[in-house]
Amino acid sequence: MENVIAELSEIVGPEHVLSGADLSDDYSHDEALSVEHQKPLCVVRPAAAEQVSRILRLCTDKRVPVTPRGSGTGLSGACVPVPGGVVMSFERMKRILEIDTENHIAVVEAGVTLDELNTAAAAKGLVYPVFPGENSASLGGNVATNAGGMRAVKYGVTRQHVVGLEAVLATGEVIRTGGKLVKTSTGYDLAQLIIGSEGTLAAVTQVIVKLVPLLEHRATLLAPYKSLVEAVRAVPQVLVTGVGPLMVEYLDQFTMMAITAQSGVDLGIPANVQSDAQAYLLVVLEARTAARIDEDVELAGRMLSERGAMDVYVLPSNAGTKMVEAREKAFWSAKAAQASDVIDIVVPRASLPAYMERVKEISMRHAAMIPGCGHAGDGNVHLAVFEQDPDKRSRILRDLYDSGRALGGVISGEHGIGTAKKKYFMALEDPAKIALMRRLKSAFDPAGILNPGTVFD
Amino acid sequence: MENVIAELSEIVGPEHVLSGADLSDDYSHDEALSVEHQKPLCVVRPAAAEQVSRILRLCTDKRVPVTPRGSGTGLSGACVPVPGGVVMSFERMKRILEIDTENHIAVVEAGVTLDELNTAAAAKGLVYPVFPGENSASLGGNVATNAGGMRAVKYGVTRQHVVGLEAVLATGEVIRTGGKLVKTSTGYDLAQLIIGSEGTLAAVTQVIVKLVPLLEHRATLLAPYKSLVEAVRAVPQVLVTGVGPLMVEYLDQFTMMAITAQSGVDLGIPANVQSDAQAYLLVVLEARTAARIDEDVELAGRMLSERGAMDVYVLPSNAGTKMVEAREKAFWSAKAAQASDVIDIVVPRASLPAYMERVKEISMRHAAMIPGCGHAGDGNVHLAVFEQDPDKRSRILRDLYDSGRALGGVISGEHGIGTAKKKYFMALEDPAKIALMRRLKSAFDPAGILNPGTVFD
Repeated sequence: MENVIAELSEIVGPEHVLSGADLSDDYSHDEALSVEHQKPLCVVRPAAAEQVSRILRLCTDKRVPVTPRGSGTGLSGACVPVPGGVVMSFERMKRILEIDTENHIAVVEAGVTLDELNTAAAAKGLVYPVFPGENSASLGGNVATNAGGMRAVKYGVTRQHVVGLEAVLATGEVIRTGGKLVKTSTGYDLAQLIIGSEGTLAAVTQVIVKLVPLLEHRATLLAPYKSLVEAVRAVPQVLVTGVGPLMVEYLDQFTMMAITAQSGVDLGIPANVQSDAQAYLLVVLEARTAARIDEDVELAGRMLSERGAMDVYVLPSNAGTKMVEAREKAFWSAKAAQASDVIDIVVPRASLPAYMERVKEISMRHAAMIPGCGHAGDGNVHLAVFEQDPDKRSRILRDLYDSGRALGGVISGEHGIGTAKKKYFMALEDPAKIALMRRLKSAFDPAGILNPGTVFD
Repeated sequence: MENVIAELSEIVGPEHVLSGADLSDDYSHDEALSVEHQKPLCVVRPAAAEQVSRILRLCTDKRVPVTPRGSGTGLSGACVPVPGGVVMSFERMKRILEIDTENHIAVVEAGVTLDELNTAAAAKGLVYPVFPGENSASLGGNVATNAGGMRAVKYGVTRQHVVGLEAVLATGEVIRTGGKLVKTSTGYDLAQLIIGSEGTLAAVTQVIVKLVPLLEHRATLLAPYKSLVEAVRAVPQVLVTGVGPLMVEYLDQFTMMAITAQSGVDLGIPANVQSDAQAYLLVVLEARTAARIDEDVELAGRMLSERGAMDVYVLPSNAGTKMVEAREKAFWSAKAAQASDVIDIVVPRASLPAYMERVKEISMRHAAMIPGCGHAGDGNVHLAVFEQDPDKRSRILRDLYDSGRALGGVISGEHGIGTAKKKYFMALEDPAKIALMRRLKSAFDPAGILNPGTVFD
């Protein structure tokens, strides 16, 4: 093993191989609440695809596991290393290679964060519209988990914005797929297969994404409801109008209280309404002109009122921004409140009312609190599970996943399977598909060194 | 071989296995201009996934090649069978299983055509927005080639609308991926890998697609230019406005003359302008209200004028519809004019001016006519090549592909590689990627029976 460290040092320079006392605990975990930390043998920090290639070839030769790591903001334990393995951190690969205003394309290295990309894009009137809520996340990490977020209801998820990748196979080949092209039908789409594969198929070194023009006008509507089921039942109706909202989020009462308290946001809603409201829809609209935003607010507001909202509040611009920021931090509020786990089941959006009924039953049956919020427009719920006992928690999760599946849903909408959910994934997924995925994994990574233990064993 | 026909007859009934004199020549080809027709051993017409499964298991056991076939409207020879092989036609799998208005989702069998789907969707105020121009194409065929079309500049291509598939592996397993879900991060995205694989990885039996609300208001702008290069140079500027056009097409003078003559469309443009115009941009806008469409016409029109258009004509609604229909039939006009081949290179849209210069050079150097039109907003050009001699044509095509590649482009934006372009694909693509694609192919289809000879050998 000393040998591996020495050889890695030759590739990237000794100062970029961290081990022993130099090794921060940060590299032992991501933000998953339920996954045990694990120290790797060492961390290697390459600066270029060519170094990534040499590292992977070495590790394939020596059968050393490699866990690629972006900013470590994942929620499923996908970048938690295995004992004796190497963490390959992309923290030095942070160049924004191009913001192309004619093609509306950005070309960035895998370690560039969403914040860094959007600062550069905004300077040219453009935006990368995928907002998973954690702006320190890297583009490489977003590709790994096919990140979504609040704006996916309008713009789609990472998969819909990535038009090309540079990636390194476990055997060292550097491949490039796609380009500054919005479409291609030229052989199998390797980029689409790598997206969402959580670092198990290839190490992504460069990401080419579509940008969109910044729309300047925005409005935030907040609609309280007497029940959670009523709130999510209104969602399809908002979307059928064709206003094309930027965000359609739901929050239950507990979550709304927790995030507003934590962020110090004043909703400006009468106390009696707040105390009666069991849930909220948060709808954000954007448009090219002020007149259009007014029209859309009118239409969406009317629709919400007609579909059972207690009232509809158009938040002042500043309060709207704060409300959205508070919602972005919901995970941290859940963590601060000592949630044991946070999961992100996705169901057809019209099945949200039925799913919420099931969650309530499960919560009562297990005597466990399961509050939440989520991307209602996408049918993607974020549930915080409060149950310290791992066996009990496991039974609750299994019930939540089974109920989602019975409604046509799947385990994760955007956080991925990682290591945290693989036992549920393997129990619920069709064995023929798992067998096929294993064959695909072998086609990319014959020695099985890339992120072993993530997605499946 | 008689044995195979007998066994297939047992699976689907003898009336659904066509061979000998019963076998129409239709099954020997698609619409590719340059691919030789080939009679298969027989055609089998399954009615359900379970029959597809039995057929494929049989053919894997006996090592009989199987070519899946939708409506046969492809342009790259992907459904031309191999000698002694079986054509599996999806013409009987035509059920529209669901138009779900709450989730904006359609579930259809693979043989359903775009026409049939959109008739059913329109009855509920929805539309499947991928319009490859040939409405008799099947959804299964669209998935095979990742079809695009004129509306892709606004709505994206097939890949962005398919949210789930039912597909049968060569070894007979029926798998289901995705669902009525707009997002998922739950294991490898098998649907995305199958989309665009031209029937070589699995036989698609069911397709789940997103629909969008029909927007009622539409306007068509036609802008003549003194040169083709000037016309395509204006494209990025139209897109940066944020009006989000439904279509941004270019047509060169020859193509415009051919399609208007063939369709009997009167452009209503003065004769002197028509004779000076070397190219046109055709921009179609859609919006939710009449006021918005007027505003967008104003903005897009101004932008076109400022970027060198000789003039900008807003076509009367009826003429606009006819113009778009004529453009849809451009392939048939090229065929009627005796074009030898039609190809669909895609380059970054801002590289279209440079690419058009190269095409002109290539046309002059080879003394061959290469007129065209295409999806300028996507950088996707459709070039008709007039050169009867196969060797000369091959050199022209190679030059066209090389020039596209030098600008960051790829061989096909939406028609696929099929059998027509595989020699170029294999010559130009990175051998490491081809080797990886072959390994993926083996992971799906160990005996190599599914559409052999398509994409690569």
